Amino acid sequence: MVNVIILGQGFVGSIFASGLEKIKAGEIEPYGVPLRDELQIKIKDINIVGSYDVDVNKVGKSVYDVAKHYDNNVPESLKDIEVKKGVHLNSLKNLPIKAEGLEDKMSLEDAINHLIDEWKEAKAEVFINVCTTEAFKTFNSREELEKAIKENNKERLTATQFYAYAISRYAKEVGGACFINAIPTLIANDPTYVELAKESKMVIFGDDGATGATPLTADLLAHLFQRNRYVLSIAQFNIGGNTDFLALTDVDRNKSKESTKSSIVEDILGYNAPHFIKPTGYLEPLGDKKFISLHIEYISFNGARDELIVNGRINDSPALAGLLVDLSRLGKIALDRKEYGTVYEVNAFYMKNPGPKEAKNIPRIIAYEKMRMWAGLKSIWL
Amino acid sequence: MVNVIILGQGFVGSIFASGLEKIKAGEIEPYGVPLRDELQIKIKDINIVGSYDVDVNKVGKSVYDVAKHYDNNVPESLKDIEVKKGVHLNSLKNLPIKAEGLEDKMSLEDAINHLIDEWKEAKAEVFINVCTTEAFKTFNSREELEKAIKENNKERLTATQFYAYAISRYAKEVGGACFINAIPTLIANDPTYVELAKESKMVIFGDDGATGATPLTADLLAHLFQRNRYVLSIAQFNIGGNTDFLALTDVDRNKSKESTKSSIVEDILGYNAPHFIKPTGYLEPLGDKKFISLHIEYISFNGARDELIVNGRINDSPALAGLLVDLSRLGKIALDRKEYGTVYEVNAFYMKNPGPKEAKNIPRIIAYEKMRMWAGLKSIWL
Amino acid sequence: MVNVIILGQGFVGSIFASGLEKIKAGEIEPYGVPLRDELQIKIKDINIVGSYDVDVNKVGKSVYDVAKHYDNNVPESLKDIEVKKGVHLNSLKNLPIKAEGLEDKMSLEDAINHLIDEWKEAKAEVFINVCTTEAFKTFNSREELEKAIKENNKERLTATQFYAYAISRYAKEVGGACFINAIPTLIANDPTYVELAKESKMVIFGDDGATGATPLTADLLAHLFQRNRYVLSIAQFNIGGNTDFLALTDVDRNKSKESTKSSIVEDILGYNAPHFIKPTGYLEPLGDKKFISLHIEYISFNGARDELIVNGRINDSPALAGLLVDLSRLGKIALDRKEYGTVYEVNAFYMKNPGPKEAKNIPRIIAYEKMRMWAGLKSIWL
Amino acid sequence: MVNVIILGQGFVGSIFASGLEKIKAGEIEPYGVPLRDELQIKIKDINIVGSYDVDVNKVGKSVYDVAKHYDNNVPESLKDIEVKKGVHLNSLKNLPIKAEGLEDKMSLEDAINHLIDEWKEAKAEVFINVCTTEAFKTFNSREELEKAIKENNKERLTATQFYAYAISRYAKEVGGACFINAIPTLIANDPTYVELAKESKMVIFGDDGATGATPLTADLLAHLFQRNRYVLSIAQFNIGGNTDFLALTDVDRNKSKESTKSSIVEDILGYNAPHFIKPTGYLEPLGDKKFISLHIEYISFNGARDELIVNGRINDSPALAGLLVDLSRLGKIALDRKEYGTVYEVNAFYMKNPGPKEAKNIPRIIAYEKMRMWAGLKSIWL
Ligand SMILES: NC(=O)c1ccc[n+]([C@@H]2O[C@H](COP(=O)([O-])OP(=O)(O)OC[C@H]3O[C@@H](n4cnc5c(N)ncnc54)[C@H](O)[C@@H]3O)[C@@H](O)[C@H]2O)c1
Ligand SMILES: NC(=O)c1ccc[n+]([C@@H]2O[C@H](COP(=O)([O-])OP(=O)(O)OC[C@H]3O[C@@H](n4cnc5c(N)ncnc54)[C@H](O)[C@@H]3O)[C@@H](O)[C@H]2O)c1
Ligand SMILES: NC(=O)c1ccc[n+]([C@@H]2O[C@H](COP(=O)([O-])OP(=O)(O)OC[C@H]3O[C@@H](n4cnc5c(N)ncnc54)[C@H](O)[C@@H]3O)[C@@H](O)[C@H]2O)c1
Ligand SMILES: NC(=O)c1ccc[n+]([C@@H]2O[C@H](COP(=O)([O-])OP(=O)(O)OC[C@H]3O[C@@H](n4cnc5c(N)ncnc54)[C@H](O)[C@@H]3O)[C@@H](O)[C@H]2O)c1
Ligand SMILES: [Mg+2]
Ligand SMILES: [Mg+2]
Ligand SMILES: [Mg+2]
Ligand SMILES: [Mg+2]
Repeated sequence: MVNVIILGQGFVGSIFASGLEKIKAGEIEPYGVPLRDELQIKIKDINIVGSYDVDVNKVGKSVYDVAKHYDNNVPESLKDIEVKKGVHLNSLKNLPIKAEGLEDKMSLEDAINHLIDEWKEAKAEVFINVCTTEAFKTFNSREELEKAIKENNKERLTATQFYAYAISRYAKEVGGACFINAIPTLIANDPTYVELAKESKMVIFGDDGATGATPLTADLLAHLFQRNRYVLSIAQFNIGGNTDFLALTDVDRNKSKESTKSSIVEDILGYNAPHFIKPTGYLEPLGDKKFISLHIEYISFNGARDELIVNGRINDSPALAGLLVDLSRLGKIALDRKEYGTVYEVNAFYMKNPGPKEAKNIPRIIAYEKMRMWAGLKSIWL
Repeated sequence: MVNVIILGQGFVGSIFASGLEKIKAGEIEPYGVPLRDELQIKIKDINIVGSYDVDVNKVGKSVYDVAKHYDNNVPESLKDIEVKKGVHLNSLKNLPIKAEGLEDKMSLEDAINHLIDEWKEAKAEVFINVCTTEAFKTFNSREELEKAIKENNKERLTATQFYAYAISRYAKEVGGACFINAIPTLIANDPTYVELAKESKMVIFGDDGATGATPLTADLLAHLFQRNRYVLSIAQFNIGGNTDFLALTDVDRNKSKESTKSSIVEDILGYNAPHFIKPTGYLEPLGDKKFISLHIEYISFNGARDELIVNGRINDSPALAGLLVDLSRLGKIALDRKEYGTVYEVNAFYMKNPGPKEAKNIPRIIAYEKMRMWAGLKSIWL
Repeated sequence: MVNVIILGQGFVGSIFASGLEKIKAGEIEPYGVPLRDELQIKIKDINIVGSYDVDVNKVGKSVYDVAKHYDNNVPESLKDIEVKKGVHLNSLKNLPIKAEGLEDKMSLEDAINHLIDEWKEAKAEVFINVCTTEAFKTFNSREELEKAIKENNKERLTATQFYAYAISRYAKEVGGACFINAIPTLIANDPTYVELAKESKMVIFGDDGATGATPLTADLLAHLFQRNRYVLSIAQFNIGGNTDFLALTDVDRNKSKESTKSSIVEDILGYNAPHFIKPTGYLEPLGDKKFISLHIEYISFNGARDELIVNGRINDSPALAGLLVDLSRLGKIALDRKEYGTVYEVNAFYMKNPGPKEAKNIPRIIAYEKMRMWAGLKSIWL
Repeated sequence: MVNVIILGQGFVGSIFASGLEKIKAGEIEPYGVPLRDELQIKIKDINIVGSYDVDVNKVGKSVYDVAKHYDNNVPESLKDIEVKKGVHLNSLKNLPIKAEGLEDKMSLEDAINHLIDEWKEAKAEVFINVCTTEAFKTFNSREELEKAIKENNKERLTATQFYAYAISRYAKEVGGACFINAIPTLIANDPTYVELAKESKMVIFGDDGATGATPLTADLLAHLFQRNRYVLSIAQFNIGGNTDFLALTDVDRNKSKESTKSSIVEDILGYNAPHFIKPTGYLEPLGDKKFISLHIEYISFNGARDELIVNGRINDSPALAGLLVDLSRLGKIALDRKEYGTVYEVNAFYMKNPGPKEAKNIPRIIAYEKMRMWAGLKSIWL
């Protein structure tokens, strides 16, 4: 059994909940779940035991009622889970959404205790962070982080930074918890948090779920690298119509995303080929099915110049939701093994910016095999 | 040192010769050569010591004069190598090219001895087969093959089958030779030839050089497999304007190519996703820079349907020519190690249809690493 | 009012019937209908009064029951129209469909009389031919055509040729009828038929409905022509999974399609730029939503070389079905005006191979304006 | 004869000069020149009689020396034309280019007189404005404009606004001159300038040369409009590596470009379909050959959803340079006919934002025909 809490009951959180329940009910195949049902912990062992949001239109509703807006076939089993109020900390600032957070009525320190109580009651083990993309500043030390909490400094902390800290406190009390950071805010790549995790019996997976054009580009670049084709330029566009793309029209949030996306180029090729890789725009009618366009030009043997163009229509939220089905179970495995801190083998496959900080991107095709072996499964092709 | 003979002084053979000499002269970088100059046998150690063709406009000319038609900057060093007459055996049938072969004036058995003499004189070690794509029938036994030679049965044998046999005889006499079969005719995948090779101190690499859309598709399919995305359909088109595409307008030659191209689908995905993967057409102005178009539709998590489209303009001949720079050296390494027969580790990366017969395609990104290790190099990411 | 008969109750015929009824019921907008509801004859004036097929699984059923296989929301109003038995004449030969035709039990001459009786009863005015693509031979004279009928020569005639002849007889008797030939068989481009039409008070529109990549290519080529860009090559692929693509895997049927598709190049550019334009393949899971890929390379000012690539996913049958909503009404208008023979202004916009024989393709964007003016509407931009 | 002055000796100006001289010398075909050599004024009648720039590395050099950086085959005939110093007015602000202008050493009023003297000497007739894209503010009245000049207000005026005014003064003195505004600054769309032109015997063509993805999108949208396909969304990306793309990374310059590009959507479709159409990025290795990507989704008949994707590699500067060969001659024709003010028929084909202000975009395919007729040529298809 794995007891899971969703932080951010948006598109990804809702598709995760809805798809998971359908797989458990045998209604659909576990497509999009990299490890299928191969792990010892089965998909049917995953229990969603809680959900948090700050959108006033979601807080207090059931996950079923929220998920209906994203999926027109939501299992009834989600009617029993209530979306509770989280901390806001400016997550939705400038977005056309009305928000409220625990911090409106209590101090951050009190909010931590309030949440820990709820999580104990829910017997939470794994926390999935799929809140809105944030503009953030990392902390240079644990002191700095704890000071911000203590002083109730709501401008200094993002929600993700807050949740990760609160969960470390919870982990310490109950003897273990896992935080899956599927968004760009640096947590698994922030040494302060990784240290904190080690001391608190906490496992961190992160940062930023590896979906869409980025892991594909990683594998394409590996393909070119292995043929010693010299990459002249890489242009990658992304445009979509879900709230996350809307949030990314904000310059600062966008920068969070850009840096995790761009890191693959030098990591894989060994040189920083000129590139333009950014979330590019919001176009409402595209909805969750984004349009991607990728152009790569390179030099082949005898000076020949080749070009590749990749276009795609890709459902954004299911791509991440499918990974979360694995990550929830891998989080429990890591806890069982007491591998506190962060786990590169997991991050290298599932995350755009795999922690820890000094770790690099490797081709996903290889990362998959190594991750399988970490998880106790046979590799397929190694 | 590796002494190399080119069989088929066409586009690939000429770009190989021209590019190789430019790299040796330090004029260009070894882009397109997967192993760079990492092997103990250096690129500058490769000597082209002979060339064979059957086009009457090529036989008797220098490689320099022939290569000029394919590259407008051919090194003078190729002036010393003469294109000699090979056996024809219908290779150019139905194509608008006038051909003549040794078999016009002598028996096949005599042609073998004639060639062996020339090869001894040249101290040939590695033979690269880049003749025109053939329509062929495999042999079921060594007896059947030898009978065809003995009876001078010019309709039964293709040029590739003949050359491979002649080289086995040469290998036996001189104590080793390598046959690199870069074309679709089954040799490394034909147990008769692999057995023959083992007994004759011959190394075979094959079949059909892995360039263009096929290895890319292999890696894309591996990418999808690893995320458990269920592939609904794959359509792949190829169109080019070089003589090889012209040859493929012939239905039987085309079938040779189709079967090597299609094998990747089931090998990688584990199920035979519906696909249309064929060399599709000839369009003269495209020249050697083919246009490829690939469409893949698949199911992701929660039943979502995604689509990928890959388009490319890819220089066909340099892609294979760059691989031949490695294969020549790997052939010598295999000979030094006496690994007679065929070498799956090499084939799995460099060949569309990696021999031996029972062997399967694996993702190229993984095959590369294993091939490096076979070659005595460190893997990059394993 | 326009009374319409559908010949061939397949994908196009069914989407036409289903979509038309939905528009009439106000359930959907007339998207895909070029003239919207601008004509004096309104969309709601179109009555489907009959349907013919030869597939044993369709004959005897209602159009509703047949259309259900192509559309999951078919209006009940189609329950009243029965699919009657037509003539077969090898239309479905080699396809995995069991067929039967009137000619199994009667002579062709008797079949004509039988059909005329049914059509009189139905008060048919406009006939839409959307049977399976045929391999055909044109007739050189009316005598040759009538001889084939008289001698009951079932191998000489295709179904389309038969229907067009039978309708000419019907037109003569009742004082007017229109035959819309939406398939590649040459009818509007066959002077024998056009002459016959003029004498029989018959209007012919044809040949081959202009949908998909072909009219788009026509407009793209016009765009390039107008900038005096010199087109070096054009490659166009089409792949789909409906029965029509399956039928086109037959070499002879495919040729019918290829020739209508290719004619645009020289017609628009004024020179026969090298091109590869063919229906390329059948891939079942694509269904009716075909994948198209188009590559054009050209020379711009100062010798610069540019490239365009167009990809698309296009629903094949709705594209033609929408045109048929106009063509039915335009057919009636032509009858009212007694413009017997064929009408180039209509064909130039709606048909891939606009009749009469000597007529050429023009850019669709201009053809549209001229067609509007023919139909008594204001041009938009002229 | 037409005597032409180039304002802005950059990529476009240089390719225009170089390509024109090559056509005049019979070295290349006039590809990329829409009207070929059909006009009464022949291509060989165009004389470049002057050139202006403000880049310190260009001023004082010959057009030949400048053009060498953009074209590796520049005709010697360009050695005789010197690049003279223009006015700067912040054109290159924030760009990594050192600039100087006449205004550094004299008042704007003096600069006008200085230039008029030079132009008289050169017998200039047509002025082509291809300076760097500007951030600008239109003038609300002639008074406001003349006040800015008189008060030497260098922050209020852009170079284009200044040149256009100076040329109006020149036109008035010499009895006619044409200003071709190939850049986004509103001149032909600014009533103040159009009025001024009418009073000064000046012809204005503008604004912003119609090249690249925008006119193509206009024709594609017309294609969809004519089939009544309902456009759901349009995404268009452009990325290139020339100085103009670099200039467009500046937010304000970018806005100038965005507004001219976006206007086509509502003009052609009749409704403002949601769209994202912007110059998107700078990627140096792409050079002048930009990469474009266009995605359109629409509803077809019976509610079907289709998608089109267009990708291209397009040489940016030759595309505009070819148009300038026509515009120079059409400018002279307009002067000969005394059609002062602006000429919609010309603008509608050649300009992204065709003046006058109230005029709209029409499909280019139709605009071409009307423009031909204005120019005294036969239409091709009307
Ligand atoms: N494929 C993908 O979709 C993908 C891939 C990688 C990362 N991500 C990341 O996943 C996150 C979620 O994406 P989405 O598409 O579901 O976005 P979304 O906007 O649909 O959902 C975000 C949800 O989080 C809630 N939220 C915001 N701040 C909160 C807070 N402080 N506490 C609790 N809830 C809060 C919002 O109200 C909303 O319901 C984004 O940060 C995105 O960057 C998504
Ligand atoms: N990327 C690639 O180009 C690629 C990839 C995989 C395989 N291949 C294979 O490589 C081969 C060569 O391709 P190419 O583009 O150079 O073709 P090509 O037509 O340019 O060259 C083939 C040459 O072989 C010669 N030849 C034909 N029969 C011969 C014989 N019996 N003996 C000696 N010479 C003979 C021809 O005269 C010609 O010079 C083809 O079989 C092709 O399938 C090419
Ligand atoms: N966009 C398009 O789909 C498009 C465009 C241009 C032309 N067309 C043409 O339209 C035709 C129909 O396409 P479809 O997709 O509907 O194909 P389909 O195979 O779904 O339908 C054809 C129908 O005709 C019936 N039929 C065959 N022979 C017949 C006969 N002799 N008498 C009566 N019925 C007969 C078949 O049984 C079938 O029901 C094809 O010829 C195709 O070339 C289609
Ligand atoms: N296809 C196209 O390239 C295209 C299409 C439409 C419009 N345009 C417009 O054409 C213009 C030129 O494009 P480009 O690619 O040649 O750019 P570029 O940067 O290569 O050239 C601009 C030149 O103008 C010069 N210049 C700048 N300010 C000046 C001034 N005040 N006086 C005189 N010279 C000045 C610069 O020094 C430079 O030499 C741009 O405004 C662009 O928006 C180009
Ligand atoms: Mg890291
Ligand atoms: Mg094999
Ligand atoms: Mg015709
Ligand atoms: Mg305007």
